[in-house]
Amino acid sequence: MIRAIGIDPGSRCTGYGIVEGDGTHLRHVANGALRISPGLLFPDRLKIIYGQLMTIIDDNRPECMAVEDVFFAKNVKSALRLGQARGAAILAGVNSGLVVYEYSALQIKQAVVGYGKAGKNQVMEMIRYLFGLRDSIDPNAADALAVAVCHLNTRSSRLRWEPGQRS
Amino acid sequence: MIRAIGIDPGSRCTGYGIVEGDGTHLRHVANGALRISPGLLFPDRLKIIYGQLMTIIDDNRPECMAVEDVFFAKNVKSALRLGQARGAAILAGVNSGLVVYEYSALQIKQAVVGYGKAGKNQVMEMIRYLFGLRDSIDPNAADALAVAVCHLNTRSSRLRWEPGQRS
Repeated sequence: MIRAIGIDPGSRCTGYGIVEGDGTHLRHVANGALRISPGLLFPDRLKIIYGQLMTIIDDNRPECMAVEDVFFAKNVKSALRLGQARGAAILAGVNSGLVVYEYSALQIKQAVVGYGKAGKNQVMEMIRYLFGLRDSIDPNAADALAVAVCHLNTRSSRLRWEPGQRS
Repeated sequence: MIRAIGIDPGSRCTGYGIVEGDGTHLRHVANGALRISPGLLFPDRLKIIYGQLMTIIDDNRPECMAVEDVFFAKNVKSALRLGQARGAAILAGVNSGLVVYEYSALQIKQAVVGYGKAGKNQVMEMIRYLFGLRDSIDPNAADALAVAVCHLNTRSSRLRWEPGQRS
């Protein structure tokens, strides 16, 4: 059984989703979204993302972290802001001793919906269906759960092909 | 007397420069460049930037951090990478209890050379002259010293106008 935390980073809202998998079954552990007041100074926002994720990791004890690898952004300024939030999330992972894996949006959608060009709503509905979540879910938390699912599914198929590979 | 650490962040090389100022005189304390092997995985690079800056801050005890505020990058991909390295450096500051200040390239060049469109070499030569540094200096470390100088000069002129203002 492996427990993974998936992260959907953003400077205003960072989603997280924790999932357990044994190679055949997946179990939802927790999900949420850290919403940070845009009134705060940027360094303080990074401190909150880092600190809250450190606490969530400490409370839930995942063994690895999966983060979406971003290649696109509206513009250079928003890419810089997203990069800083992403850096804070990744640091919370590596400084907690987790191995951090990166997956493209294409890989994540293919792993969750089976179709690389699926829309955001399709991913969210599939995540709710997969885990039998009745209530609506924060879109950032759904995306974070999707990255964790992608990691666990990719990992289990990788393990079938390459037995003995780490984590 | 205020001691500031200036940072020139980058995913391959992050420059730092520590300067002390009392409102009229500036004193060079230390400078250097953290060069990170491009062969390392990106999360490990962030861990090194964060960890080494935490140690440098702990050893030199600056009271505040100044970082260049970046608005431009070659493309979205390099902006994301730069943002992550910048996020790691800023986090090392806020997690060490430092207030982090941001200055534009224009402000930095104006503060150091007196001319907002000065070239990189002019900034480097002015930094060497200002501190009487005989040996050549790493360009990233020179840029980091320039941000620290900008903060201390801006701060002292601000203090003259607004006595009683913090840090």
